[in-house]
Amino acid sequence: MIVDSHQHVILPTKNQLTQMDEAGIDRTILFATTVHPEMTNDVEAFKKEMRILNKIISGKRNALDARIKSVNEQVRVIEENPGKFIGFGTVPIGLSQEETSMWIKERVVAYNFIGLGEITLIPGQASKLKSIFAATSEFGNLPLWIHTFAPLTLDDIKAIVDLAKQFINVPVILGHLGGINYLETIEIAKENKNLYLDLSAMFSIIPVSLAIKELPERTLFSSDAPYGDPFLVRKSIERVTNDNHVREQILGGNIAQLLSI
Amino acid sequence: MIVDSHQHVILPTKNQLTQMDEAGIDRTILFATTVHPEMTNDVEAFKKEMRILNKIISGKRNALDARIKSVNEQVRVIEENPGKFIGFGTVPIGLSQEETSMWIKERVVAYNFIGLGEITLIPGQASKLKSIFAATSEFGNLPLWIHTFAPLTLDDIKAIVDLAKQFINVPVILGHLGGINYLETIEIAKENKNLYLDLSAMFSIIPVSLAIKELPERTLFSSDAPYGDPFLVRKSIERVTNDNHVREQILGGNIAQLLSI
Repeated sequence: MIVDSHQHVILPTKNQLTQMDEAGIDRTILFATTVHPEMTNDVEAFKKEMRILNKIISGKRNALDARIKSVNEQVRVIEENPGKFIGFGTVPIGLSQEETSMWIKERVVAYNFIGLGEITLIPGQASKLKSIFAATSEFGNLPLWIHTFAPLTLDDIKAIVDLAKQFINVPVILGHLGGINYLETIEIAKENKNLYLDLSAMFSIIPVSLAIKELPERTLFSSDAPYGDPFLVRKSIERVTNDNHVREQILGGNIAQLLSI
Repeated sequence: MIVDSHQHVILPTKNQLTQMDEAGIDRTILFATTVHPEMTNDVEAFKKEMRILNKIISGKRNALDARIKSVNEQVRVIEENPGKFIGFGTVPIGLSQEETSMWIKERVVAYNFIGLGEITLIPGQASKLKSIFAATSEFGNLPLWIHTFAPLTLDDIKAIVDLAKQFINVPVILGHLGGINYLETIEIAKENKNLYLDLSAMFSIIPVSLAIKELPERTLFSSDAPYGDPFLVRKSIERVTNDNHVREQILGGNIAQLLSI
C-alpha cells in the first residue's frame, strides 16, 4: 500500500484524488489548511494566500475561527472519501494541559483523527509544546507532526527532541526533515526511537538519499501537497533506492505500521 | 537545445555525462567544487564532505589552494568534453578591485570561462561584492551567479540587488531563487532587467510554478547536481507548464541567449 503521509486539503477534492491516482497513492494522511492557494485565479490572489501561509508556518497567525472552519472542511472531505483519506487533527499551542486535553477529546478524537498536526512554532518557543506532549499521552499517544523547516533553527529542533525524550511513547514526526539542518536531524533521529523523518520540502536529493540510507525503518514518504508534487516526491524516493523492501517501507509500510492502518 | 545552467563537477565524468543523457541535457554550465560527496564510499565520509560544503555555502571556508585545485579539475573536464560543458569561473570575495580584475584576467578569462560563480557569502557582507561587480564590468560584464538560499536573508538579497542596480549591465543570476524568500525575490527580479531566477534547490513546486509564470523570459533550468537531480528538476518544470515555447525558454533558450552560446 502506497501512503502519502502528509497532504493538506486540496479543493476541489477531485483534483486531489486525480493527483493521488497519477502518483499511484492508495491512501493519504490528510491535514487541515486555512489557505487554499490552489483555488486562486490570478497571481496576486495566489501570492496573498502564500503570504498568509508564511505567517502560519512561522507561528505568527492561526486564528481560532479559521482553524475550526478548516477542520470542518477536512472532516467533510474524509467522510466523503473514507477509503482514501485518514486525518490528523489540528491543535492550538499555548493552551494549558487541561484545555489541550479537552480540545483533543472534542476536536480530534471525536472526529476519529489519529494524530496531531501540522504543528507550527514561533522559533524559540518549543517549550510551549509540553502541554501537547502531556495531553496526547492521555489519548493513547497520538503521533505529533511538527514543522521543522525554516524559520525553525537547530536549537528549536533540539528543544523538540528534548520533549520527545521526556515522552518516549509519543511518536514525533519531524516534518520536512529539519530543513537545512537535515544532517544533524537524521543523526538525532537515529538515537531516539520515537522520532520519524518526513521527506517533504526537500531542496536537494541528498537528504532524501541519506535519510533512507540511515533510517529506512522510520523515514516517511510525504509530499505536503499542494506545496509538493506527490508524483515527483515518489519518483525522488524511487530514484535513490532500488531495494524493493526499502521502497515499500518508505512509501507506505512505515507509516502504516506507526498508525496501525 | 536543453541547457542545465548550474551543475558542479561530478567525478568520474562519465557519471555526469550519463546523468545529462538521461535527463536529455545537451549542454551544462559547469561550476568548480572543492568537495565531492559523490565519490565517498561510506556514510561517515559522505557526511564529512557535506559538513565542509555547509561551511563553504555560508562563506566560512574556501581555502585558496583548494579553490585553485578545483579550477584545474574543472578546466580538465571541460577540455575533455568541449561539446558538453561550458565553465563559470570561481572568484574570491574580499580582494581589492585591482586584485579582483587580475584574478578574473588570469583565472577566468584565460580559461575561457564565461561567467563568475558560485559566489557564496557570509550573511551581512554583500557589500564586499562591489569589487566583483566593478571588475566584471571591465571584462564585458561576465554574469555573476550568487547563492541566495539559506543562510542568506532577504536583507542580503536586497543588498545584492542594490549592487545590481548600480551595475545595470552586469547580469546577476539569483541562485536558488532566494530560498524561502522566493515571493519577494521574484517580485524584485521582475523590476530589474539584469536579474535572473535560478530553479535549483526548490523545496516546493510553488516557487517553480510562480517564477515561470511571472518571469518566463528570465527564469533558468538548473539542477545544482550532484545536490539536485537533473531528471527530476527538468520534470518539475515540464509539470508546471504545458506551453512549448515557455518550456524551451526555461530549459535552455534563456541561458543560451544570456551567454550567447
